[in-house]
Amino acid sequence: MKPLKVALLGCGTVGSAVLRLLEEQSDDLAARVGRRIEVAGIAVRRPDHHPGVPAALLTTDAEALVRRDDVDLVVEVIGGIEPARTLLMAAIESGKSVVSANKALLAEDGVALHAAAAKAGVDLYYEAAVAGAIPLLRPLRESLAGDQIRRVVGIVNGTTNYILSRMVETGAGFGEALAEATDLGYAEADPTADVDGFDAAAKAAILASLAFHTPVTAADVYREGISAVTATDVARAAEIGCTVKLLAICERVSDEEGDSVAVRVHPAMIPTSHPLAAVGGAFNAVFVEAEAAGELMFYGQGAGGEPTASAVLGDLVAVARNRLVGAAGQGPSGYADLPIRPMAETPTQYHVSLDVADKPGVLAAVAQEFAHHDVSISTVRQNGHGDAATLVIVTHSAPDAALSATVAALREMSAVREVTSVLRVEGLS
Amino acid sequence: MKPLKVALLGCGTVGSAVLRLLEEQSDDLAARVGRRIEVAGIAVRRPDHHPGVPAALLTTDAEALVRRDDVDLVVEVIGGIEPARTLLMAAIESGKSVVSANKALLAEDGVALHAAAAKAGVDLYYEAAVAGAIPLLRPLRESLAGDQIRRVVGIVNGTTNYILSRMVETGAGFGEALAEATDLGYAEADPTADVDGFDAAAKAAILASLAFHTPVTAADVYREGISAVTATDVARAAEIGCTVKLLAICERVSDEEGDSVAVRVHPAMIPTSHPLAAVGGAFNAVFVEAEAAGELMFYGQGAGGEPTASAVLGDLVAVARNRLVGAAGQGPSGYADLPIRPMAETPTQYHVSLDVADKPGVLAAVAQEFAHHDVSISTVRQNGHGDAATLVIVTHSAPDAALSATVAALREMSAVREVTSVLRVEGLS
Repeated sequence: MKPLKVALLGCGTVGSAVLRLLEEQSDDLAARVGRRIEVAGIAVRRPDHHPGVPAALLTTDAEALVRRDDVDLVVEVIGGIEPARTLLMAAIESGKSVVSANKALLAEDGVALHAAAAKAGVDLYYEAAVAGAIPLLRPLRESLAGDQIRRVVGIVNGTTNYILSRMVETGAGFGEALAEATDLGYAEADPTADVDGFDAAAKAAILASLAFHTPVTAADVYREGISAVTATDVARAAEIGCTVKLLAICERVSDEEGDSVAVRVHPAMIPTSHPLAAVGGAFNAVFVEAEAAGELMFYGQGAGGEPTASAVLGDLVAVARNRLVGAAGQGPSGYADLPIRPMAETPTQYHVSLDVADKPGVLAAVAQEFAHHDVSISTVRQNGHGDAATLVIVTHSAPDAALSATVAALREMSAVREVTSVLRVEGLS
Repeated sequence: MKPLKVALLGCGTVGSAVLRLLEEQSDDLAARVGRRIEVAGIAVRRPDHHPGVPAALLTTDAEALVRRDDVDLVVEVIGGIEPARTLLMAAIESGKSVVSANKALLAEDGVALHAAAAKAGVDLYYEAAVAGAIPLLRPLRESLAGDQIRRVVGIVNGTTNYILSRMVETGAGFGEALAEATDLGYAEADPTADVDGFDAAAKAAILASLAFHTPVTAADVYREGISAVTATDVARAAEIGCTVKLLAICERVSDEEGDSVAVRVHPAMIPTSHPLAAVGGAFNAVFVEAEAAGELMFYGQGAGGEPTASAVLGDLVAVARNRLVGAAGQGPSGYADLPIRPMAETPTQYHVSLDVADKPGVLAAVAQEFAHHDVSISTVRQNGHGDAATLVIVTHSAPDAALSATVAALREMSAVREVTSVLRVEGLS
């Protein structure tokens, strides 16, 4: 029987791990698929940079490779929007099934790619795009297909999780912790994609699309990174039994106008008793709440060559099996097509710490400002007295715009010397 | 378009939750499957016991129901071996795809059922059979299909986990904790299946079959329940930084004779720092180690009507989609067909506590007994002195038979007044 031929696009950390696993597990993969899988070619930019790879397989003409008649399946681990988009479209139009680890592309153009794949009758799988080795997209898409997902809350970026973990452990500020992460290779030379939340926002868009059967792009995701998180925020979090994490939060919000989808990425205080609080260092974890299933958590390595390659190969086995039975798997559906809820209207909870003058009436005046914006206070704690008095306030849930307007107003109050820490709170009842 | 018709076998806690979700989510399911799903009939033993169900759907003739020409899919939530086996075989032979939550049947006869399903070209899915709502079988079967799984270690029985959690929290003995669990409805009137590990052993067999591409039945699983766990065991565990859990452990063991599969269910001490140690009450969690993916954990509700129904409906959507495209999903493969390793030859670690006479030479004599059986000691701690001296010993890994022979020999030693606690240890390096 003729083997299935794979074109590999990209041969960096993930690509070379894919290549190694394809070779090492060749017999097992053949038994699991029902056909041998062979590498037809590997597209790279600089063939002389890959001494360990058979030169005959290397090419710089990626588009010619994906269009080759003898290629059945395409694995894309280049990352970024272009040339990946053009190459995947060419692959799909040539009738190849595609496995991709490209979160940025899927979050920007998933709908168009899926439409093209459906039209061509081929598969488009991308488990590796979110949370590395953790099986997450298939469970959301398939295992929970008979349930209603309410929320998906995840730690999906290892770099920021490492930085925040170090800030919590050492009391360091953001800059110091970032420098350490860069030295150790946990952060890239240009850390923008991680630190400013772009990476997590792309993953959140993909998760929300699958969870809510609604097309969500990265542009729909409210995004705040961790560069403004201070050592004071971390200390204040500890005082209320919380830790600080960068969360990707996808929610179905119901109100009198019907259901909508809110998707956001921002740092938040979460209780140290929350299962996500213990997720340290470069690990990822995703918490899912569904109507019938209740609470589920998925935990594992979110990045790295081997873990990502594991997810790529799982997809490769699936698309190869589908190829052999002549049926593409069903793509994600966007039938629900729920409206995207703006961040301003999304219910959130805030923690606010204030330095105030300890005079009679200050607490009343501050409380009045919250009430004026229709924000209900959950807890207030007053620390110290005299010039050093602080108020630590946790609100109930309210529209984010009302909360941020309240904070802006507090900054203008004469009785408030300084707003020392503002951070959203998640998972406190 | 003609709806897909489902026959439901059994209408207890899980069955009635399936029925309710099918109705409540009718539109969503139709959108996700691409066709409406309708209940064709419900087989029960006593139709008058189901007042909330339309009488016209109820029947006592389950076999006639599964053979009906207008039935496309069969959902079996009866449990137990018979009549479930006969009914599922009849369903498969009549060309129906089957979703089952029946761990006992799948663990005993999975190979025959899968062979029949493959022959008939229909699906046999059973995500709900292991760990309730937690997506586990699909990730093992599909997401990790490109990886090599080394170990699967799980807390897969909520009743025993509740009992052990209470023993740890309150210092109670097994009998007292069981009585409490029975009062609260966490344990059944006849708790044998849970307490003696039969339920966990069936789940372990299913997990091992999928993880290692090797047919494993419940009879292949070494099984010890928790009824012999004492308050002393729990206290000794705490002294060495551990807690006690009933674990289902599926391992690939490699030695000079090649690879084999060891599958066992028994109580064990695990470090409180292990992710499974924090899994309390009726929750389930499964820890997976794979070559490339590294460590993964899946966590959620392991039982209950709604969570189990969520898993059943996820499978139902999958088999319905497959039905519409005319292709059955690939069943699990048994191609590796590794030998089952007997428990006696399976490497384990023991914790042993002894009351000894505190005389010179006792430790030497005890150590000599371990050495005589080729068992290497990892740590020894001596507590107290005089008549009340105790030795707490943790071994290195050794064949289980050598460890149990050592314990038997220790019981015969004149210097050993009593062996007060013997329990296996997992997850200590």
